[in-house]
Amino acid sequence: MGDTEFVIEPGRQDIVMIRAFDAPRDVVFRAVTDPELIPRWWGPHWLDTRVEAMEVRPGGRWRFVNIDASGREYAFSGVYHAVLRPERLVRTWEYEGAPAEVALETVTLEESGGLTRYVAQSVHPSVEARDAIVRADGAKGGAQSMDRLAEVLKGR
Amino acid sequence: MGDTEFVIEPGRQDIVMIRAFDAPRDVVFRAVTDPELIPRWWGPHWLDTRVEAMEVRPGGRWRFVNIDASGREYAFSGVYHAVLRPERLVRTWEYEGAPAEVALETVTLEESGGLTRYVAQSVHPSVEARDAIVRADGAKGGAQSMDRLAEVLKGR
Repeated sequence: MGDTEFVIEPGRQDIVMIRAFDAPRDVVFRAVTDPELIPRWWGPHWLDTRVEAMEVRPGGRWRFVNIDASGREYAFSGVYHAVLRPERLVRTWEYEGAPAEVALETVTLEESGGLTRYVAQSVHPSVEARDAIVRADGAKGGAQSMDRLAEVLKGR
Repeated sequence: MGDTEFVIEPGRQDIVMIRAFDAPRDVVFRAVTDPELIPRWWGPHWLDTRVEAMEVRPGGRWRFVNIDASGREYAFSGVYHAVLRPERLVRTWEYEGAPAEVALETVTLEESGGLTRYVAQSVHPSVEARDAIVRADGAKGGAQSMDRLAEVLKGR
């Protein structure tokens, strides 16, 4: 997983992903909320990403579509809740192939000494739903996104 | 708590509320998704409720305002996600006094022998956030809503 740390405790309903970025907090916040940049870092590197909606405000929708080499599409969507610039974002997300399985994600950015600690916590309705994401290599996809985001942030 | 059962396990992030209603599942589903009926059962009996939005479809908003005897208002809101009529509803909710504290609720209705088992599971971002709801007598308010809903369902 490289420089990305995960906290996935047995019996809990959440996954916590932590990454330190060498950039100020407001730069990281702007990067993660910029629809133009999403295709450059969101998801594993072998998939293309198309942004269909990204309304970063309470009640705003987002919808991203991953496309694999054969053209097959996998859509993810949700709604933004709290947007506390530049420190916190709360949003829901679901894989549209399993629309009743919604997760609630809280992204918190903490700055210290010029580094920004990005903490993304996803809480799922059940331990089983969380464990299914873990088995589907969700952590690997997350870690790849973080590596790609680190590249995007270089020089910003 | 009367006839309403709660499952609140130490160290977990969720609250599960269970109630059996003497009505078919589609009747219960229609009642809980009818904005006209919300003021008759939603919340503790000593508060009035005004429905400002209730768009029961994926992505639809809801906003209910509780009003106490002195006229003070307490607003709750969120977004509907999956709506699988008549068996499941997934929605978020927040108390607008603490907008960064969002919870994800899944309501599941199971019918058996003419009775409908209503299971509402709310998952919170942390054990602490869940426990704060428990300390604020959230379960008592929930149980009163269920008692009032049982009254509304009588004769339907």
